[in-house]
Amino acid sequence: MRISELSAKSGVAIPTIKYYLREGMLHQGEQTAATRAEYDETHLRRLRMIRAMLEVGRLSVASIKKVIESVEDESLPTHEMLGTAHYALSPGVEPEPGEEWEAARAQVDALVEELGWDVDPEAPPRGELAQTIIRMRQLGVSIDLGPYAEAARKLVAEVEMKTIPFDGPRDAAVEALVLGTVLYGRAFDALRRMAQESESARRLTS
Amino acid sequence: MRISELSAKSGVAIPTIKYYLREGMLHQGEQTAATRAEYDETHLRRLRMIRAMLEVGRLSVASIKKVIESVEDESLPTHEMLGTAHYALSPGVEPEPGEEWEAARAQVDALVEELGWDVDPEAPPRGELAQTIIRMRQLGVSIDLGPYAEAARKLVAEVEMKTIPFDGPRDAAVEALVLGTVLYGRAFDALRRMAQESESARRLTS
Repeated sequence: MRISELSAKSGVAIPTIKYYLREGMLHQGEQTAATRAEYDETHLRRLRMIRAMLEVGRLSVASIKKVIESVEDESLPTHEMLGTAHYALSPGVEPEPGEEWEAARAQVDALVEELGWDVDPEAPPRGELAQTIIRMRQLGVSIDLGPYAEAARKLVAEVEMKTIPFDGPRDAAVEALVLGTVLYGRAFDALRRMAQESESARRLTS
Repeated sequence: MRISELSAKSGVAIPTIKYYLREGMLHQGEQTAATRAEYDETHLRRLRMIRAMLEVGRLSVASIKKVIESVEDESLPTHEMLGTAHYALSPGVEPEPGEEWEAARAQVDALVEELGWDVDPEAPPRGELAQTIIRMRQLGVSIDLGPYAEAARKLVAEVEMKTIPFDGPRDAAVEALVLGTVLYGRAFDALRRMAQESESARRLTS
């Protein structure tokens, strides 16, 4: 298909497609004339994936680029490729030097240990969780994370992992991991806010 | 305390505190001299709340302002105040005109109906979920949202709602709702990404 059709089908404007091509986030089409290139389903799919990461995942273009680079780096073993892509999805948090930070990080590390989870000591979500714990503590919000950890583990193990084709081509696996992280994350968040509205209505208007 | 101490304790820079005062996001201190004002624990708490919404919730200053305005609008009944604050937390999504959007919205409405949840027909998370469903469908990601809805309902009903003092002062209730939404949301997201790493490691390196 021509770039105009690719744009119509993906909902991505032509100048934006050209930007992704220049940045290497989208592979070149097949040149059929000096000013004409043909695109196919792989281009459409990549554009849809970028759009999902951008709009639904609210990721920055820089993060999306990192995810795509890890997919395309053939030298990385599958587990590392998945890890690199996965970490690129993390909003990332600057450690706040001081005792409060140390204590919160220690609490996170103890929780992960207790759960028996196999998570890298430097994994970015550890820092995110530490920051959240500090804010909770400062504001006096209760911090029993056990039920959240159990719900997360269950959804990941029983639903999400089944959607990832670990035996298939590597880009299919990373794509499924990235999209699952972003899309299921957003779906859960929206559902949770509806559950809050519903429970709150039940308690206040009955 | 003086503004310098308020800044040190909250971790918010003095010019930023002055900006919040000008914007009405922070109530004025008690004027003790022409150029001197005294602040107390209520100011510190408000600053910590703003910081949590900004850093952990990644909300815009405009959204935070809307949340604070709803807390301070004494004319709103409690349930409406909570609703207004709650909707201000929503990232919000523009409907995409067309059949795809209609079908996704219908699917969301059917799901909410089936769950028996009491959610306003115009609640913003309905649109967010519709957008997510469209992206999933375009990318061929499986879309069984049942286990996510059930996990969300359970966490909200059994953990989060217990932290909200519905009988206490109204600002305490909205504060707890907002912080719960933002902080537990982030904690869950971080835990979920760690669970993904752990499950992925288990499947790929065993």
